[in-house]
Amino acid sequence: MQNFLKKHEVGVFALGGLGEVGKNMYCVEYQDEIVIIDAGIMFPDDELLGIDYVIPDYTYLQENEHKIKGLFITHGHEDHIGGIPWLLRHVKVPKIYANGLAVGLIKKKMQEHRGIHYNLLEFFENDIIRFNNLKVSFFRTNHSIPDSHGIVVKTPQGKIVHTGDFKFDFTPTGPDADYAKMARLGSEGVQLLLSDSTNAEVEAFTKSETTVSENIRDIFSRIDGRAVIATFASNVYRVQQIIEASIATNRKVAVFGRSMERTIEVGQEMGYIEAPHGTFVGARALKHFNPEEITILCTGSQGEPFAALSRIANGSHRQIKVQDGDTVIFSSSPIPGNKASINRTINQLFKRGADVIVHSPLSDTHTSGHAGAEELKLMLKLMKPRFFMPVHGEFRMLKKHAQTAVATGLREDRTFVLDNGDVLALSGGSARIAGNIRAQSVFIDGKGIGDIGNVVLRDRRILSEDGLLTTIITIDKETRQLIDKPVIVSRGFVYMKDHTELTNEISHMVNQHVEELIKRKQDVPVPTIKKEVTNLLNDYIYTKTERSPMILPVVVTV
Amino acid sequence: MQNFLKKHEVGVFALGGLGEVGKNMYCVEYQDEIVIIDAGIMFPDDELLGIDYVIPDYTYLQENEHKIKGLFITHGHEDHIGGIPWLLRHVKVPKIYANGLAVGLIKKKMQEHRGIHYNLLEFFENDIIRFNNLKVSFFRTNHSIPDSHGIVVKTPQGKIVHTGDFKFDFTPTGPDADYAKMARLGSEGVQLLLSDSTNAEVEAFTKSETTVSENIRDIFSRIDGRAVIATFASNVYRVQQIIEASIATNRKVAVFGRSMERTIEVGQEMGYIEAPHGTFVGARALKHFNPEEITILCTGSQGEPFAALSRIANGSHRQIKVQDGDTVIFSSSPIPGNKASINRTINQLFKRGADVIVHSPLSDTHTSGHAGAEELKLMLKLMKPRFFMPVHGEFRMLKKHAQTAVATGLREDRTFVLDNGDVLALSGGSARIAGNIRAQSVFIDGKGIGDIGNVVLRDRRILSEDGLLTTIITIDKETRQLIDKPVIVSRGFVYMKDHTELTNEISHMVNQHVEELIKRKQDVPVPTIKKEVTNLLNDYIYTKTERSPMILPVVVTV
Repeated sequence: MQNFLKKHEVGVFALGGLGEVGKNMYCVEYQDEIVIIDAGIMFPDDELLGIDYVIPDYTYLQENEHKIKGLFITHGHEDHIGGIPWLLRHVKVPKIYANGLAVGLIKKKMQEHRGIHYNLLEFFENDIIRFNNLKVSFFRTNHSIPDSHGIVVKTPQGKIVHTGDFKFDFTPTGPDADYAKMARLGSEGVQLLLSDSTNAEVEAFTKSETTVSENIRDIFSRIDGRAVIATFASNVYRVQQIIEASIATNRKVAVFGRSMERTIEVGQEMGYIEAPHGTFVGARALKHFNPEEITILCTGSQGEPFAALSRIANGSHRQIKVQDGDTVIFSSSPIPGNKASINRTINQLFKRGADVIVHSPLSDTHTSGHAGAEELKLMLKLMKPRFFMPVHGEFRMLKKHAQTAVATGLREDRTFVLDNGDVLALSGGSARIAGNIRAQSVFIDGKGIGDIGNVVLRDRRILSEDGLLTTIITIDKETRQLIDKPVIVSRGFVYMKDHTELTNEISHMVNQHVEELIKRKQDVPVPTIKKEVTNLLNDYIYTKTERSPMILPVVVTV
Repeated sequence: MQNFLKKHEVGVFALGGLGEVGKNMYCVEYQDEIVIIDAGIMFPDDELLGIDYVIPDYTYLQENEHKIKGLFITHGHEDHIGGIPWLLRHVKVPKIYANGLAVGLIKKKMQEHRGIHYNLLEFFENDIIRFNNLKVSFFRTNHSIPDSHGIVVKTPQGKIVHTGDFKFDFTPTGPDADYAKMARLGSEGVQLLLSDSTNAEVEAFTKSETTVSENIRDIFSRIDGRAVIATFASNVYRVQQIIEASIATNRKVAVFGRSMERTIEVGQEMGYIEAPHGTFVGARALKHFNPEEITILCTGSQGEPFAALSRIANGSHRQIKVQDGDTVIFSSSPIPGNKASINRTINQLFKRGADVIVHSPLSDTHTSGHAGAEELKLMLKLMKPRFFMPVHGEFRMLKKHAQTAVATGLREDRTFVLDNGDVLALSGGSARIAGNIRAQSVFIDGKGIGDIGNVVLRDRRILSEDGLLTTIITIDKETRQLIDKPVIVSRGFVYMKDHTELTNEISHMVNQHVEELIKRKQDVPVPTIKKEVTNLLNDYIYTKTERSPMILPVVVTV
């Protein structure tokens, strides 16, 4: 960074979260101090075959480890805390600061990654954490998980405010956001605002969580049979509201799905989930109750293949079978890419005789945790920033958010739609893009971090479409003659047992071709043989089948 | 069918189109006569790795070939005509009847499948096609492609009406639907109605094509730069409207994408596309015009990776680069499953400096070709069927459509939500489900039809996630000793060059294990060796990497 920032400048950059929804990680750097905001993961899109998670490239932080003062967590969602174990494996972070539920969730997470040292401190909303030149403070916001906060980093070049994920909910099911503090920050002067762009394209003001609670209660009271309801396990408020709606409509609650069970457990431990004794019942006790006395609260609102609801829908759930009169409620909206599997689940549920209610403008069984355009304007009006940098969103969301900011009166040349790695340098009244640092995506597959590159992904793509065909060619080291016919093995190409003729033909062709090659030149190198066989088979198999399996020739010399 | 139907009964069944959107094929059978309505394909969902198309199982038609009187085509969309070449390869169909554009599109299609004999006749809307006991007639409807018709099969047990795909558009851009004929059918008596369920879940009345035309014209007149507009190539009306909007706003039209070029070509030949000479310009001529004088009409509205718009967006289009001031208009809505790739395209377009307008309730740049719930009710009121069978939709759409029918006054026990293959038997005033025939999905991959089964798909799934690792074990036939170390080759698992240590370790392990096996029992059979090596490597590799590549051991004895 020495190359980019002048001594008096404050640098602001993202290692993740710009041009994408996920792996949020924002940094504020001044001289020998770096403050990090959030350390998230991203879930891979379907082009990243077999990848489990995506994390940021932590190289810059490794190289500047000595500057890191602390990691501040805005809230406990995976795209904000999921990267912590991976970060800590590579980078020494002296302190992690988080509040409330996020503290509990980080602890749970670290229990699953034993052996990593970490130093987790709880901040409270009126705390000020002081470093040498940087001071960090907080303001409470509303979001779809309790204890969400915005973060203020006071620097010698003014205050940098990061909203975290937020919406304005004037009738929240938890505590109010701290409007006064936001307004005060604005009055005192905000140099740079980083604000959540997830719903920048949504014109409407996001509905209150209370509306959803009321609708769920209405639905529960209207239906005669069992209420089966799926929602995001992380939405502790929603879970609590579902429990309250069940109590209000004389229903017992049975919980299915590991992450939902964990939410209830952590939520009860920490006081977010409250229910009188006897509210929850186990699967086996369900038979003692009438259908209209039962709520089944479960995971699977995104059609995830192994989640509780998907297994109920396809009939493979060990404890719950769909019965006549069941009403399944999706208290969620589809994440892009999940629509097809959600539809599959819904079809299966209908087919088994359940009625299904999905979130729609009519049913309103879900609301977003993110601010729509009008709320974003309110945030801009409260904060009145000199400079503006939309964060947390794909490019078109950032762009739209920037346009919204300009519509509220911000000067266009003071809005910065940046990429991960771009370094924004602030000094006095000016801001400039000073350069950019390494900020690629790093793929995690199983235990491997970053060892899956484009070659492996390209191979998986080819394999996924037409499978592979391998031919083993055995050559006598001495005589340079082929020993036996080449062995042909294929997977994912054709069902081999049904295609012995094709297999024999291919083996014969390879045999003939290699014999000729050797005849022409006795010491033909192995790579040449492989290349020739690959070309031969690519052409032949495509002509014959119009498929292009991966050709994998192996030459064994004995 | 002899088993199911009594002699006087009429059988109605689908070989495709129930419980799915795609591969529509409905049959009406009476004694020794079968009339087929449509022969479509379905595009595979992303679980069907590498599959090109899905078609119905034609076995029943093969076995009853002698009964087939004709195939009647409702309209020229792929999910209604795409299966024709595949059907004709297996089943002799004496005559195919289609109207207008569908005739042109079927001819084009058959040119791509040379050597298949077919007998294509054009029907006109007032024709009656008479067979021994069955009579087929038609009524004009509105849909997103010209020349869409409903089909009436008059049987000894009353009239069976199939709506085809339809909407009610009171201000269509083509001819009006034949309301009078529909009403007359209803007055005269409809025994069974089969009606399009695609938009049964949509409450609203589908907007008119004219609204969309006006909006596109508005947008074209408002924007200063080039208008880049993507839509479904099959929507000839829309294409014509875009051309007219261009003419009205003094724009030349440049067309990109093979299927769009073909639409213009066929459309012009057949008189659906009309434009004064000089309206169309080639890519090279574009430089002679100002940006506000240019419309670029292209494919790619679904984010298809190789379509024109996707290549423009990712910068790989040979002729068109995004320039400042470009506005890209999506005159389409996302088909489930395509949302993520469309978003990717939009992000890239924004990033290159284009403005992007997608269809939304605000912009209204697209409308569906299918009737919403209110229109479905209108169809039911016009037709007043005794029995009702919702078709053309996933299960939840069929179910919703049936509920809608009941809401209009139809008796619930007279609505039939069926599966492909279920045979509905009609006689006099009664209907019953008589049984079911074979009606699975058949996968087409390259030239192969139906040769891809679950084993191959499962293998592709495994390969797509963690790749494969093959180990070649060479054993001396005589001495029963291993010759050399086992060769290890992997693809899509780890990048082999970076993992020589792991590879050596695996080779060493396999070597040791096989040697021990042989030591214990000299003539250990090859399958045992393979099984042992597979188990060994599965465990070892998972422990080491938490990945589960496909293990493919090959034993060569020399």
